[in-house]
Amino acid sequence: MSLPRRLAAEGLGTGFLLAAIVGSGILGERLADGNMAIALLVNALATAAALFTLIEWFAPVSGAHFNPVITAALTVRGDLSARTALAYVPAQMGGAVGGVALAELMFGEPVWSWSTRPRHGATQLLGEVVSTFGLVGVVWVCTRTRPTAVAGIVAAYIGGGFWFTPTDFANPAVTIARAATDTFSGIRPADVPGFVLAEVAGVIVAILVFGWLLPASPSTERPPRR
Amino acid sequence: MSLPRRLAAEGLGTGFLLAAIVGSGILGERLADGNMAIALLVNALATAAALFTLIEWFAPVSGAHFNPVITAALTVRGDLSARTALAYVPAQMGGAVGGVALAELMFGEPVWSWSTRPRHGATQLLGEVVSTFGLVGVVWVCTRTRPTAVAGIVAAYIGGGFWFTPTDFANPAVTIARAATDTFSGIRPADVPGFVLAEVAGVIVAILVFGWLLPASPSTERPPRR
Amino acid sequence: MSLPRRLAAEGLGTGFLLAAIVGSGILGERLADGNMAIALLVNALATAAALFTLIEWFAPVSGAHFNPVITAALTVRGDLSARTALAYVPAQMGGAVGGVALAELMFGEPVWSWSTRPRHGATQLLGEVVSTFGLVGVVWVCTRTRPTAVAGIVAAYIGGGFWFTPTDFANPAVTIARAATDTFSGIRPADVPGFVLAEVAGVIVAILVFGWLLPASPSTERPPRR
Amino acid sequence: MSLPRRLAAEGLGTGFLLAAIVGSGILGERLADGNMAIALLVNALATAAALFTLIEWFAPVSGAHFNPVITAALTVRGDLSARTALAYVPAQMGGAVGGVALAELMFGEPVWSWSTRPRHGATQLLGEVVSTFGLVGVVWVCTRTRPTAVAGIVAAYIGGGFWFTPTDFANPAVTIARAATDTFSGIRPADVPGFVLAEVAGVIVAILVFGWLLPASPSTERPPRR
Repeated sequence: MSLPRRLAAEGLGTGFLLAAIVGSGILGERLADGNMAIALLVNALATAAALFTLIEWFAPVSGAHFNPVITAALTVRGDLSARTALAYVPAQMGGAVGGVALAELMFGEPVWSWSTRPRHGATQLLGEVVSTFGLVGVVWVCTRTRPTAVAGIVAAYIGGGFWFTPTDFANPAVTIARAATDTFSGIRPADVPGFVLAEVAGVIVAILVFGWLLPASPSTERPPRR
Repeated sequence: MSLPRRLAAEGLGTGFLLAAIVGSGILGERLADGNMAIALLVNALATAAALFTLIEWFAPVSGAHFNPVITAALTVRGDLSARTALAYVPAQMGGAVGGVALAELMFGEPVWSWSTRPRHGATQLLGEVVSTFGLVGVVWVCTRTRPTAVAGIVAAYIGGGFWFTPTDFANPAVTIARAATDTFSGIRPADVPGFVLAEVAGVIVAILVFGWLLPASPSTERPPRR
Repeated sequence: MSLPRRLAAEGLGTGFLLAAIVGSGILGERLADGNMAIALLVNALATAAALFTLIEWFAPVSGAHFNPVITAALTVRGDLSARTALAYVPAQMGGAVGGVALAELMFGEPVWSWSTRPRHGATQLLGEVVSTFGLVGVVWVCTRTRPTAVAGIVAAYIGGGFWFTPTDFANPAVTIARAATDTFSGIRPADVPGFVLAEVAGVIVAILVFGWLLPASPSTERPPRR
Repeated sequence: MSLPRRLAAEGLGTGFLLAAIVGSGILGERLADGNMAIALLVNALATAAALFTLIEWFAPVSGAHFNPVITAALTVRGDLSARTALAYVPAQMGGAVGGVALAELMFGEPVWSWSTRPRHGATQLLGEVVSTFGLVGVVWVCTRTRPTAVAGIVAAYIGGGFWFTPTDFANPAVTIARAATDTFSGIRPADVPGFVLAEVAGVIVAILVFGWLLPASPSTERPPRR
């Protein structure tokens, strides 16, 4: 695929992903009548469903990263060139910020207002390290061992992670874009740098651990069948 | 497959789809004890489950469109003839209206009364453009790149869309038939034309965008394996 | 597979299915705090999950019918002999009644007490015709066209049907066994004959419709790939 | 794969599994506003989603047992050596106990305090026998007949079992590690031996039943396609 098509796929996909996260957060909170478990359940299910669709939809075009740490990890492994990776990240960022605006327009919320929702502290930062470590590990291993099943695996990981980690962002583009919405899914801008650092820590540990667990040898050029 | 079999599949499938949408809307609202998040969650899950089943069930017979904008888009791409497409649409419409009646009979509601539920305004119309754009894009790409996985992808997209767009009809046959039920899933007849126009706008944009992103060249005659 | 192994698979599978239906009904109602939508949601999800597992688990041994009307329809089509079919039905019935007892033992309910829950009237009988018609149609078509995906398709159909039909039993063995439990999932013994007749009507219409839609010709002996 | 890689996979996988069980239990209970059905629904969905991911992720490395009774059953069948099996169990135990601590750290709960939640009595012990019997049976059969679909089948079985058995631990490593957390998912240490004995009974019955139902003959060395 040509680079413009790949960048369009990354931008569209990340845009739909943020629209799904923010939109289902808004509608879930509005309808849940104060029961935050129901609001978060709806948010998790809609995000997982959207992510599954988006990976199946755009993977044949761009690989469906939608996430700078995934792009970074796969570049380290040699799946894409550094030049392509550098083009991917702004496409993801632009899509993410556009997707937030789209959700706000569809639900009649003000477009791009800074979040006032605090998300910080050692427990949440540890959670971001863990959820990013796991996401990168899942993608690192399963793109080699189960290439046609990756969408479902990643969607289940992220959907479950809404409940077994405190925040489950695991994505710097998602984190930064969420700062731009003062709704259910937001994060206070002041808390963004900590989250992004935690995500960077998670991807580094994941590359070390899973680079050892599943070496990127020439023999894995042909995806092995499980 | 012969044309009568294909039309029967489109009619049966669209009928079951509307029975699922309207029926689960009725039962969800009755049992949810006023919690609209639970009612909509049930409505979304049952609709997605039914849609998955119906596409797997009828795709080998008719392609399982159940939706005039899908039929239109695939006709533009050359997947079916204009003559076949013109026969599909009344089969879909007949099935949809019949499915509404079936749900109402199964749940003891009056059959075919006009909806009094308003659905209008720029936010909802934008939502219909977006959800139709995405649905057509998913079908346009995935029928080529992941032909045996389309049912699950479409079901996840529609099920998630119940939460990340305001209405997620994305289907003129569904929209018109929903006008004929004064229950949870209804839409006031006066609001139908706006929704249908928004859906037409969505399919046009989708054909332009995804016709460029995934060109319909002779080389795609053989569905590529991802 | 030898007949004793096939009968054991039908008995074990139908037993687990009833344990799942009745057990999740009991626990869902106990915990749902009076919200019947949550109780039915749990009941539907657990039943669908169990059904998916059970079909994948036992299909290579017995075909995983767990249902006399499925056995009847596939016998009409010639997939199994009348002699085998006649042995399947008592195995299914025994498993079903045993599974009810197992659920009641696991949840500390009295074993085998007649249900006092009324389920009757034209709307519910119509619902049973429709849900059985659909179930048989799904199995009739998908065992030919998507043989490795049948478990997920049937599970989605039944799980969704908990919400888009009033009762969604669609199975005489399930219906009769449910009469033997005075819990959430029960049906008054006096209402059983009507339900079974409706299920028989559903299977007859399904064989006529889908026998025409997907003829059982010699060419389908080899399951076609979609 | 080398033994250290296999042990790392068992440890990481069991660790994530316990983090998912305990973490989603904590968050579900906190948010569910006293509705225990919603808390358990969230717990079941997150656990099933995590289990699906973890089996897909680690099965190519270690087989993804995460459970001493699965390791025992597959050793009896000859899938792995007794020496490997003896190394698996401490890796699973270490991972399980570490995963509990990780969840408690991520959610700000005290690390490793004994549970005070009683779980005992004939009904719950019967439930453990049944859920372990089923889990071992599913793995025993489906690793032979549907090897690429095992993750989804096991996840559906366990997720459904949260509702159709009283406790659904089915795993001695999970049982022992749950004793070390005084949160939603805990079990009083005094009740652990009974649960483990019930699980051992379940695996023995399963090996007898499914060893007969699906004999481990040389001809099954090549996984048959369904």
